[in-house]
Parts: sequence; C-alpha cells; structure tokens
Amino acid sequence: MARDLDKIFKPRSIAMVGASNVPAKWGSFLLVNLLAGGYPREKVYPVNPRESAIHGLPAYPDIASLPEAPDLAIVTTPAVTVPGILEECAAKGVTNVVVISSNFSEVGEEGARLEKVLVETARRLDLTVVGPNTMGIVNARHSLYAVGAPVQLRPGHISFVSQSGNVGANMLGWTMNQGIGFSKFVGSGNEALLGAADYIDYFGEDDETELILAYLEGVDDGRSFMQTVSRTCLKKPVIVLKSGRTEEGGKAAMSHTGSLAGSDHIYDAAFRQSGAIRSETSQDMLDLAKSLERLPLPPGDRLGIVTLGGGWGVLATDATAMAGLKLAKLDEEVARVCDELLPPFWSHGNPVDLVGNIYMDTHLAIMEALVKSPEVDCVVMLGSLGTGTMIGLNVLVSQSLIMEMSEESLKGFFTELKGRNLRLLARAKELMREHGKPIVFVEMQFIGDENLRDLEGGETVIFTAPEKAAWIISRMLRYRRWLESKGAVTCSTRQ
Amino acid sequence: MARDLDKIFKPRSIAMVGASNVPAKWGSFLLVNLLAGGYPREKVYPVNPRESAIHGLPAYPDIASLPEAPDLAIVTTPAVTVPGILEECAAKGVTNVVVISSNFSEVGEEGARLEKVLVETARRLDLTVVGPNTMGIVNARHSLYAVGAPVQLRPGHISFVSQSGNVGANMLGWTMNQGIGFSKFVGSGNEALLGAADYIDYFGEDDETELILAYLEGVDDGRSFMQTVSRTCLKKPVIVLKSGRTEEGGKAAMSHTGSLAGSDHIYDAAFRQSGAIRSETSQDMLDLAKSLERLPLPPGDRLGIVTLGGGWGVLATDATAMAGLKLAKLDEEVARVCDELLPPFWSHGNPVDLVGNIYMDTHLAIMEALVKSPEVDCVVMLGSLGTGTMIGLNVLVSQSLIMEMSEESLKGFFTELKGRNLRLLARAKELMREHGKPIVFVEMQFIGDENLRDLEGGETVIFTAPEKAAWIISRMLRYRRWLESKGAVTCSTRQ
Repeated sequence: MARDLDKIFKPRSIAMVGASNVPAKWGSFLLVNLLAGGYPREKVYPVNPRESAIHGLPAYPDIASLPEAPDLAIVTTPAVTVPGILEECAAKGVTNVVVISSNFSEVGEEGARLEKVLVETARRLDLTVVGPNTMGIVNARHSLYAVGAPVQLRPGHISFVSQSGNVGANMLGWTMNQGIGFSKFVGSGNEALLGAADYIDYFGEDDETELILAYLEGVDDGRSFMQTVSRTCLKKPVIVLKSGRTEEGGKAAMSHTGSLAGSDHIYDAAFRQSGAIRSETSQDMLDLAKSLERLPLPPGDRLGIVTLGGGWGVLATDATAMAGLKLAKLDEEVARVCDELLPPFWSHGNPVDLVGNIYMDTHLAIMEALVKSPEVDCVVMLGSLGTGTMIGLNVLVSQSLIMEMSEESLKGFFTELKGRNLRLLARAKELMREHGKPIVFVEMQFIGDENLRDLEGGETVIFTAPEKAAWIISRMLRYRRWLESKGAVTCSTRQ
Repeated sequence: MARDLDKIFKPRSIAMVGASNVPAKWGSFLLVNLLAGGYPREKVYPVNPRESAIHGLPAYPDIASLPEAPDLAIVTTPAVTVPGILEECAAKGVTNVVVISSNFSEVGEEGARLEKVLVETARRLDLTVVGPNTMGIVNARHSLYAVGAPVQLRPGHISFVSQSGNVGANMLGWTMNQGIGFSKFVGSGNEALLGAADYIDYFGEDDETELILAYLEGVDDGRSFMQTVSRTCLKKPVIVLKSGRTEEGGKAAMSHTGSLAGSDHIYDAAFRQSGAIRSETSQDMLDLAKSLERLPLPPGDRLGIVTLGGGWGVLATDATAMAGLKLAKLDEEVARVCDELLPPFWSHGNPVDLVGNIYMDTHLAIMEALVKSPEVDCVVMLGSLGTGTMIGLNVLVSQSLIMEMSEESLKGFFTELKGRNLRLLARAKELMREHGKPIVFVEMQFIGDENLRDLEGGETVIFTAPEKAAWIISRMLRYRRWLESKGAVTCSTRQ
C-alpha cells in the first residue's frame, strides 16, 4: 500500500512559511510561481512575522494565527528554524510539509545533525515531509506550482520524481517546448523521510498518472526499491535515468547527494529484472515518455521501413540492427501494393524506397499494407511528412517568381500542405488503434519545432532523425516482453 | 593535385538544359531554387525546344543557340538524351556538366548500359561531369543553389559531399535553423566520373573551405580514398558519417547506390588512421562541425566542469568518463578562487558545484581560474547561461504580480538578461583565444532555439544537454592527437 500523498499533491490550502517580498529569495519565487501557476490566491497563506502583506496577499505572523489548518505547509526558512516550524505545524493540525530549505545533510556534519533532528521531530509528530533541500512539487492538473522554477506545464499523465532538483526543473522546462503533458513532479531532495520509492509507489496508484519518470543518483535500500519499481511496472511504465554509471560519476553522485551509487552493472540488471525502462540521456527520457504515452507497444522486433530517399533508409537500417531489431520481410500483399504504385525498379525489399515519390496516396497505401502485414510489428515512415513541405516550398517560390500571391492564397496554400500531413497522421492513428502496432514518423525536413509539435498534436510521435526511432522502439519492445513474461501484457498500454 | 572544379562551383553563367515551367518537374524547381537563391538572372540560360520563356527568362531551343558557351550546364532531361546533350555541350565549348537526370545505373541493367555510354562520351570529350542522379550543387558564398531542395544557407566555411542527395539536402535544411554557415555542397549521385574523393580533394585545396563533411555509403578504391582523406586532414578537419555500419545496413547501401559497403571495422580503422573524424549520427555531424569550426582543439583530456546544480554535474561526469576523458584536478589557485567565492561546503572537487549561485562574477571568476589552470585542458560550463533566464523570469513574474510593467521596461529587462549572457560568452571567447583551450556551454534552461542561436552568434557553441559536450570534445581531442602524430598540430585550428 502506497503512502497517501494526496494532501501533498492536491492540497486545498497552503501555508507558505518564510514567504517574502524580496525577489531573489526562495520565499519569494516559490510564492510567485505558485500564484502565477493559477493556484487559488484565497487559499494561500503567507507566513512572515515582519510583513503584513506579501505579493498582495495578507501575511500571518506565525502558523498558529492562520485562519484554518491548511492541507500543506511549504517551508523556506533557514534550516535551524525548521524543527520548530514542524512543531508549530503539528500544533495547528498541519500534517504535510514540503521543506524547501537547504543547509542540511548536503553541507556537512552540522547540517546532518540538524537533519536528524528534523527526522526525529517529523516521526514523533507523525508528519509527512518532502525534502529537505527540495526544488519543490508540481501538480499540473491542479494548478499547483510550488517549485523553484518558472515552469507552467501542459496538463497530462506523466509524473516525475527527481533526485536532483536542477535536473528535474530543467527537464520540466524542456517539456514546455516539446508538447509533453505532465501530471505531477517532485524533487525528492535529501529524502530524509520520503524517498524516491515512496513517490513511485504513490504515482503507481495515482489515477492521474499513466507513466512515471525517475532521475536517480542512488537508493539506500536497493532490494525494496526494486520491488516497488517491479510492482509499479506491472501497472504503468517506469522510465529511469540513473546517473553514477561510471566510477567517476558515482563519486560525483556521492558528493552531490551523499548516495552510494553502487555498481552500475548491478543497477542495470536490477532495472531489467524489475521492468524499468532505462534511458541513456536526459533527452532520451522525454522521447521515451512521449512514445510510451502515445504509441502502442510493438508486438515484436520486425520493422517495416518506408523511405523517401535511399540514404535515410540505409541509416535507418543501421540503426535498426544496432538496436537489436530486425527488418521485416515484405510479404506478397505488400509487394503487390508496391508493384502497383512504384516504378518497376523499386527496391523490392525493406526499406521500401519511394525514390522521391510525392503522392500522398502512395505513402498511405504502403503504410497501410505494411501495418496490416503479419510479418511487420512496427512501421517507420521516413520523410513522408516532409514531402508536402518541400514540394510546397518549391511551388511557392516558383509561383511567387511568376506572380504576386495574396496573403490569403498563401495561407490557403499552407493550410492545404498541413492538411496533407494531418491526413497521413490521422490515418496512422486509426491504423495503430486497429492493429496495435506503432507507426513512427521521422521528419528530416526542417519544418520548425512549433509546427512539428502542432502536427504531433499530443497524439503521435515525430522524430527529427531516424537514428533515434529504432532505439526507442527497442526499449518499448523490451518493456512489452517483460510484461509478457509476467503475464500482464495489455494492462498498461493504450491500444 | 586536385581536379579543378571551379567552373562547377563558381560558374559565371549556366545553361539549364531541360528547364521547365511545370511546377512538379526537376527542370522547374532546380531553376526556381537557382533564381530564388540570387544567382544573376541574366547569366542563366534555360534550354527547352518547346517554350519561348521559362520562369520569366528567355528560353533557347538548344545548346548551340546559346549566346555564349556557359561555364556550366545543368541537365534535367530524360536519361536517354544525356549522351547527346554531352555532345552538344562539347560542340559549344561547355566542358562542365552537372547531370541531375536519374534512371541510370541505380535502376538496373538498361540504366547501367546508358551510364557506361555517358562515361565513355564524357571521357572522349574531356568533360567534367557531376552525377548522374545527383541532388545538385550549392555554393552559398556565390549564391549558387542548383539543387533540388528549397534551401538558402548562411554563407560560411563548411563544405559537404554527400553520397545521398536526400540525406545531404535534409541536413543542409537543418543547418538553416542551427546557425551553421556553409561554403559548398555536392550530391555526388552515381559517381560515374567524379567520386567523393575528388570533391574532398577539391575542398581540401579550396580557400573558401575550412572544414569538410562527407556522408558516405561506400567507396570503390578504398586505399586511394583514404590517402586523399589523410592528405586533406593535415590541412583541415574531415568529418565523415559512414552508413552501412551493420551487415543489414551494408545490404541496404548496396541496393541504394550499388556501393560495396565493406567491413565497418576496416572503415573505422582506416578513418582513424587517416585522421577523419567519424560521427555516429546525422545530427552529431553538424554538432561536430559547429564545434570544430568555432572552438580551439583541446590540448589534452582533462575537463574542468562548473555546474549550477549537482545533478547535471553527475551526468556530465558520467559522460566525461564514458567519452574516455578525465576530470581535471583542481589546483591551489582554482581552490583559492572557489574558497573565496563559494560557501565553505562547496564541492572541493571537480565538478565545481555552484549550488545555485547566481552571481555572474562568480561564474566568470571560476571559468577564468579553470581555463588558466595548467591542470585543465577544456572547460565545460553547465547552466551558467540559464541562471539569467530563470532569475529573470521569476523576477518578472513577481514584478508583474505587484505592478503593471510597461512594454519598454519589459524590453529593457530582457536586454539586461541577454547582456549578462553575452558578457559571459564574450569573456569565454577572449579566454579561448588567449589560452587555446575550448570553453563549452551547456544550457539546460529552455530558452528557445532562436535565442540560443542568437547568443551563439556563430562564434561559440551552446549545447542543450551535457551528455553531448563530452563526446564532441573527445572527438576533437582525437583529431588533435592525430595531427600531433603527424607533426602538424597547429596548421588547421583557429586559435
């Protein structure tokens, strides 16, 4: 049974202990971010003995004088004051506390002693405490941005625990531009009481979470941690980015969070055994998240690749083999469709090289034939989206050389181009639903990040280079096989 | 001695044989791209027997009737007509021809026969021929865009030969958004006469080229190719992306360009021996290019890392070790500077963890101390640029909650933030020049691609995640060591 952290992540009211009007202080920007994120102003109680109002809200001199016992207290006051504040919280009936304050165990012996007092106090008073030394928490579905970074996320179904506030906050920032939706985030800080496993456990039971991300530097009780992960992976995918992979990195992690990184081989084996999907870099984690959220898990390792030009087909073939995947055989029906639509010298093999064929109907028909083929587990479309852009730009330039184009006709032209792409993506979504196989798009024409996100629409995945697609698919397949080995293949995939 | 391709890449006039008004035809969009790219209209001669004007230019019925013998003919007519056109060219005195037309050896036996005729004709008439089946050529420094892709590049010093037109054209497109400047591009097509080695050789002697990129699927005469590469690498860096790395990829390459990929291990060893820098993915090639163009080569393998937060420091440490690089020891002077500027519990080791310290003077002083240290060969700054953005956004949100901000004061605020970042980058540039060591920035706050390019200004390199920086530096170091082994270390680096 996971710990109930609902009052942490869905508080109906919040005391901001240490709230401040001074811009560079955590007590200021935590409050600012909270208000900017849309949390109801009337449910925020700044606590500061020296001010009567903070950022436009009435301030209270201490916790005792609050008009109610809020669900959550967020503390930014100096470390030495924190144990006393926990006592005040308990006296008022506040049982959930996020301790943002730093200068605890991360700064040496004196801090470690103080953290021990914090732990004893919290245990004695039966308080639920996040941190200390945490970047804060987010619940994008409840407009809760009690976090030291100016992010505002797209509400979604991904939840994220990070053992580094910086890594966590920066990655949240990246998602803002990558069209990835979030549910909850927590920087676990020094993990004096609640650890990464507690958050993973909670996210595992959380109805608003369908996918879990974890940035890890080290865990204390490896066996229990992996049990939690394994239990959770049966319900929803858990993607981990584990640093301290090298001896040097392990030492750096030790110096950063005091965590014993342990041998990376052991971690790696444990992650595999427990079903966690390990990402290699920070950006990979987000690409994996997007793909797992939007695509069905591939039923097997055989890719059908369609390419507008041979070169990308070769690079994609390399990537396929290097990711441990196979090129699917083209069955008779696929060959028949290709024979019908392509010139006689078509590649007669996988990748299917369209040799610059620009007719969307050709792309649609071959995509459909591949996804329907019993020989194919996953389809990769290289350059199909871009054809529209490239032809469009050429026609456009050509037209504008010959005649003036009105703004209206220009707009109409681009709408038509976008329509072409949307038609392809919409059909892919239907086919994915029908056949339970992923269709992945790789768009090598530069069409701008914003346009790419716009086309994805939060429902498909478009990569910008073929090398990544194969790696992502191989990791999704590994997860599916783990689920199968546990007799639980369909429970967590959106098919 | 390299072949003289000046008339190919710097033609004073061009015949467009097969020019067309029909938008979807190559004869149309080649011409459209050429004119849109700014090539002088009066120096372009469309040749088409059925039209009197093409895209606003007077058309000529055949090559014989052209008013002069142009430096270059670009041919887009059907394959069977090409040998005859070569004869016409020679008769008129046109000795340089780019054959865009496809349906030669890439489509089977009949095409191969035709290609043989093309080769014999060209040799007999002593013509210099690019292609056939090429995407075309670009010279961004001479407004020459005789290419089947709607690109317009930033003029620069990088030249690129690609054995896949698609891969080449798409990658050129990417550079438009990545602030990377180009000199020349050629899709080598079927390489009936001129091969990748010829272009590399030419670029090697070209004053307008400082760095060479090559996308390769296979080369016929490996030994002679590697000799060309090795000779060129002594003068300027050559970055190769070689596909067909796997058996499957090799087969795909065979089917695409008919080239024998050969064993990848042999290629890999040959590239190392010849000094070529091998990139792993298409995007890596551009990141390498940018870095080699803008940064001095690292004199050794010891990185000094500065990080705003511990987590990124751990990830960067992993990346350092995985790339075969080392963390530098902090000498007394560096320690003294850190003791002076950071709280007593600072990491006392490398990475130097600034624990969220936001004072630009601190970042500047520690960067300077590291680059000056004899223990350090390269400096990596994680998050230093972003501090401005993050603080700025927080202050901004805070201000806007308290009072209305005029558009003018908002603008002033962002100018100030940008000034902060520019100050850091400007100092880094000075220090790089002074000490001949690279300083690399990694910016994890999402500040938008455009802003990133704007800050880079074509003179520094800003990565968006730390994992890539270490890999790039390791490849730059490998090249430097190769140069050293040849006694030629300083000849090609811009220090």
